[in-house]
Amino acid sequence: MNERFAIGLDYGTNSVRALVVDLADGSEVASATHDYRGGEKGVLLDDRDPNLARQDPAQYVAGYVQAVGEAVRAAGRRKGFRPDRVVGLGVDTTASTPLPVDAEGRALATKRGFGRNLAAQAWLWKDHTATAEAAEITARGERSKAGYLSKCGGIYSSEWYWSKLLHCQRTAPEVFEAAAGWVELCDFVPGFLTGRTAPRELPRSVCAAGHKAMWHESWGGLPKPLLRRIEPALGRFCEAFAKEALTSDRVAGGLTTEMANAVGLPPGLPVAVGSIDAHMGAVGSGVKAGTLVKIIGTSTCDITVWPTDRPLADIPGLCGIVPGSVLPGAYGLEAGQSAVGDIFNWFVRHLAPGDGSGDPHERLSERAAAMQPGESGLLALDWNNGNRTVLVDPLLTGLLIGQTLHTQAAEVYRALIEATAFGALTILDRFEAYGVKVREIVNCGGIAEKNPLVMQIYADVTNRPMKISRSGQSCALGAAIFGAVAGGAFQTVAAAQRRMTGVKDTVYRPRKAAVKVYGELFGLYRALHDAFGTTGYRGSLHRVMKDLIALRDRIRREDT
Amino acid sequence: MNERFAIGLDYGTNSVRALVVDLADGSEVASATHDYRGGEKGVLLDDRDPNLARQDPAQYVAGYVQAVGEAVRAAGRRKGFRPDRVVGLGVDTTASTPLPVDAEGRALATKRGFGRNLAAQAWLWKDHTATAEAAEITARGERSKAGYLSKCGGIYSSEWYWSKLLHCQRTAPEVFEAAAGWVELCDFVPGFLTGRTAPRELPRSVCAAGHKAMWHESWGGLPKPLLRRIEPALGRFCEAFAKEALTSDRVAGGLTTEMANAVGLPPGLPVAVGSIDAHMGAVGSGVKAGTLVKIIGTSTCDITVWPTDRPLADIPGLCGIVPGSVLPGAYGLEAGQSAVGDIFNWFVRHLAPGDGSGDPHERLSERAAAMQPGESGLLALDWNNGNRTVLVDPLLTGLLIGQTLHTQAAEVYRALIEATAFGALTILDRFEAYGVKVREIVNCGGIAEKNPLVMQIYADVTNRPMKISRSGQSCALGAAIFGAVAGGAFQTVAAAQRRMTGVKDTVYRPRKAAVKVYGELFGLYRALHDAFGTTGYRGSLHRVMKDLIALRDRIRREDT
Repeated sequence: MNERFAIGLDYGTNSVRALVVDLADGSEVASATHDYRGGEKGVLLDDRDPNLARQDPAQYVAGYVQAVGEAVRAAGRRKGFRPDRVVGLGVDTTASTPLPVDAEGRALATKRGFGRNLAAQAWLWKDHTATAEAAEITARGERSKAGYLSKCGGIYSSEWYWSKLLHCQRTAPEVFEAAAGWVELCDFVPGFLTGRTAPRELPRSVCAAGHKAMWHESWGGLPKPLLRRIEPALGRFCEAFAKEALTSDRVAGGLTTEMANAVGLPPGLPVAVGSIDAHMGAVGSGVKAGTLVKIIGTSTCDITVWPTDRPLADIPGLCGIVPGSVLPGAYGLEAGQSAVGDIFNWFVRHLAPGDGSGDPHERLSERAAAMQPGESGLLALDWNNGNRTVLVDPLLTGLLIGQTLHTQAAEVYRALIEATAFGALTILDRFEAYGVKVREIVNCGGIAEKNPLVMQIYADVTNRPMKISRSGQSCALGAAIFGAVAGGAFQTVAAAQRRMTGVKDTVYRPRKAAVKVYGELFGLYRALHDAFGTTGYRGSLHRVMKDLIALRDRIRREDT
Repeated sequence: MNERFAIGLDYGTNSVRALVVDLADGSEVASATHDYRGGEKGVLLDDRDPNLARQDPAQYVAGYVQAVGEAVRAAGRRKGFRPDRVVGLGVDTTASTPLPVDAEGRALATKRGFGRNLAAQAWLWKDHTATAEAAEITARGERSKAGYLSKCGGIYSSEWYWSKLLHCQRTAPEVFEAAAGWVELCDFVPGFLTGRTAPRELPRSVCAAGHKAMWHESWGGLPKPLLRRIEPALGRFCEAFAKEALTSDRVAGGLTTEMANAVGLPPGLPVAVGSIDAHMGAVGSGVKAGTLVKIIGTSTCDITVWPTDRPLADIPGLCGIVPGSVLPGAYGLEAGQSAVGDIFNWFVRHLAPGDGSGDPHERLSERAAAMQPGESGLLALDWNNGNRTVLVDPLLTGLLIGQTLHTQAAEVYRALIEATAFGALTILDRFEAYGVKVREIVNCGGIAEKNPLVMQIYADVTNRPMKISRSGQSCALGAAIFGAVAGGAFQTVAAAQRRMTGVKDTVYRPRKAAVKVYGELFGLYRALHDAFGTTGYRGSLHRVMKDLIALRDRIRREDT
């Protein structure tokens, strides 16, 4: 039998990656990336508003041509590869990253008069300008008897589709009026690849629609009554939406001749319905019931699934509970942390820039790795970009406590890593408190691969082994898996996963002494978490600094 | 009439300074400093215990010879100066900085077998190893009916004399047993200058004894019953203490021939009784009833006086209320912040080291000065070295809240300055709450002189004008004033002050808009202060992050 291949196309925050994989074992045949141009690493910012994060849609098309073209050429140098042996192409992107389009589905930003308008660009997932609108949607949703918020943890996020549309209507009406539709990036890309771009006809991903736009079968798709009550003008964008939302094993369409020729692939190649990067990363990491996949990058997504034929409570604080959003036939359960790698990068960039020699992350990690849990006396909250799960509140910030006149940069760095681990444990506890048992944790993403210190701390804090996805490109691999299934190479996604995914030999196991210390620190973390993050906390925080000092002194004594 | 002169000798944390002043107007004739050798800038540290800070007593003698010798030689090059026209020499030092001595008053550290023993060195004021012992003394003191703690704010500090002795007894018994006495640095220096060194005969400063060793006339000197109850072995050091404690207008003795010859001064020159640096800094800055002097250095002392013939309540949280400790005939009232400049230095050293070009403090101050109050969204507590007033608790640490992924080093730097200003306001409020009205604030010390940003923020936060002491060496000038009075050049300290002290023309005045914003921020600071620093707080902190964000967003909008 001839070798067969699939292509996964992964649109990240700063770049797009194309991955050509071998269907026999999921191994990487070739890969190429395109870094977005413009802004700060491809993100358009506004100095006066730290909440704003936009992206130029032209970069999405350029990124496809560049990355897929280069990957296909590179694969062509390998024996056994031929473009006509590619069975399908899958797409994953950041989300919620909606962009306004005209009636033909062209990005408004590419049209005359809108090129420099920040509101006409793609609204990147981490744009937090729409906090007021999110609060309004949440307040209205809570009053509605239809339970529209029950599938997104009870709180609608400022990062999501309708918050962004509403904020656009109120702050950039010229864009809102000119838009014929708003499309998620993971729908926009299959759209321009297959030529099915008009908002009404564009195939919509159930993953994005369900997790970001309150689409749910039980209320017949979009929550139109709620949206019309909030703002009648939103009704127009409900109408400009396909009747159905699709799982990613479905074919969105065939690659247009123009797009095929631009990269050297056969016209008509099946393109799968798109999906959110984290969800495909989970698939590429072997997600199944009982397995939690943590995609650790600038932020984190925690994804697992639950069979739709088994009972499942609505879990408060989760970002989403959406049938079919990860695997067909299963609820996709999504949680996440608003910033993880972003916090480490912020610290290195602004507070520990180093002397220019070597990677400051490596230098700080090396020093931090030599420290014992608790010995710095520091504790941090991981909320520099708000809290996604379980508080679902963007109006939260970072906190660092315990610093003395001797506190060193590497100690703060370690405390920030630990803070993200405590955030991860808080999510894990929430899953299990609602009956979703987690038997295995698989990590993927750059930090999981490259930073053993982070993985060891996660193992120690959660008291569970940390496994690493075998693929270094789990999101793109997940996309390729859907490309393969859409292209007919496998009957089910699970069958493709069994063939194409796995974990590495290295497993980070919890160390008993560290687990004990982190248990104590987690108690203090939860006190701060509840005191600053909830309205109900009435405990005393007087012990926090003292307990940190006592723990620090104990560890230092034991260490000598 | 021939010109006359006095010498002030100021022992700081990292160096000793000798100042020759003209009695006509207090102007500086010559000055010289000696940087202590050894350790980190003259401070002996222990990597395993960040609380430890000691100092080599040999540096005190070397520092006298070096600094006074050089200052006298420099003064000699000025017309009108002759060594025999020096009327007296005064001494101020850090405190509580006790050191163990033998029966002749020689520092144990200079004796065989003790040179490398950290416990045999001087225990620097900022040594915080004795927290457990301080808590024990406080607990016992509270149970005592004699009110021994009523003059030191109700809490005995880990920085003070008896805490350090007790900690030595428990952790370094070989030193404790070998010591015939423990002497404060401000007594040790006049001792070796005048040859009156034996612990029992050594003149003891009422300033150090009263503020640091619970010496008070009303219970006949040292609180012997309390100390004996805590630890019988302490009784020995009560006996090895002069019967009387003296104000610094008194003569400790005449300069020995050896010490005189070493620096080119006349033997027998009157040496005043020593005192604590901050108290002399207050005198050199013109302290009087209604005038608060803030000595701003690595830490801060806030000093004012109150006539002994007017009623005065015990003020909880103050470091000390001691008759004669600043001016004869007045209560010396001392409050303080455990770290101010030390916090800025810590931040620059560990978290914003800069690129090696220029002074990082200047670079950060310049950027921070361009920011509006509230616009960073940050808030900090100034407790990196504990809290001296009003909480009197070394087991507290720093806290930073409000950081996002965009927070810059200069914003944190400004937040730390503001934190120290909020700490300063908390002290001011405490004075006035107990009837000690503050009509004028005079600042002195390096930060007051060199950092207009700090002074402007202090004016804005406290809503009061900030004046700056005319002398750049207020502590040494205060010591020189006492040298002059002890030498008979003036009848009273007040008369010497009128002649020799004053303020600069530049006054930092509060700006209305900033005062308003800081009023809001101070409310949040007090919430954190009370939540982490007291046991009684039961309010919600949920609003803190949100209020900081709302304020930040408001200021940024107004700013555009």
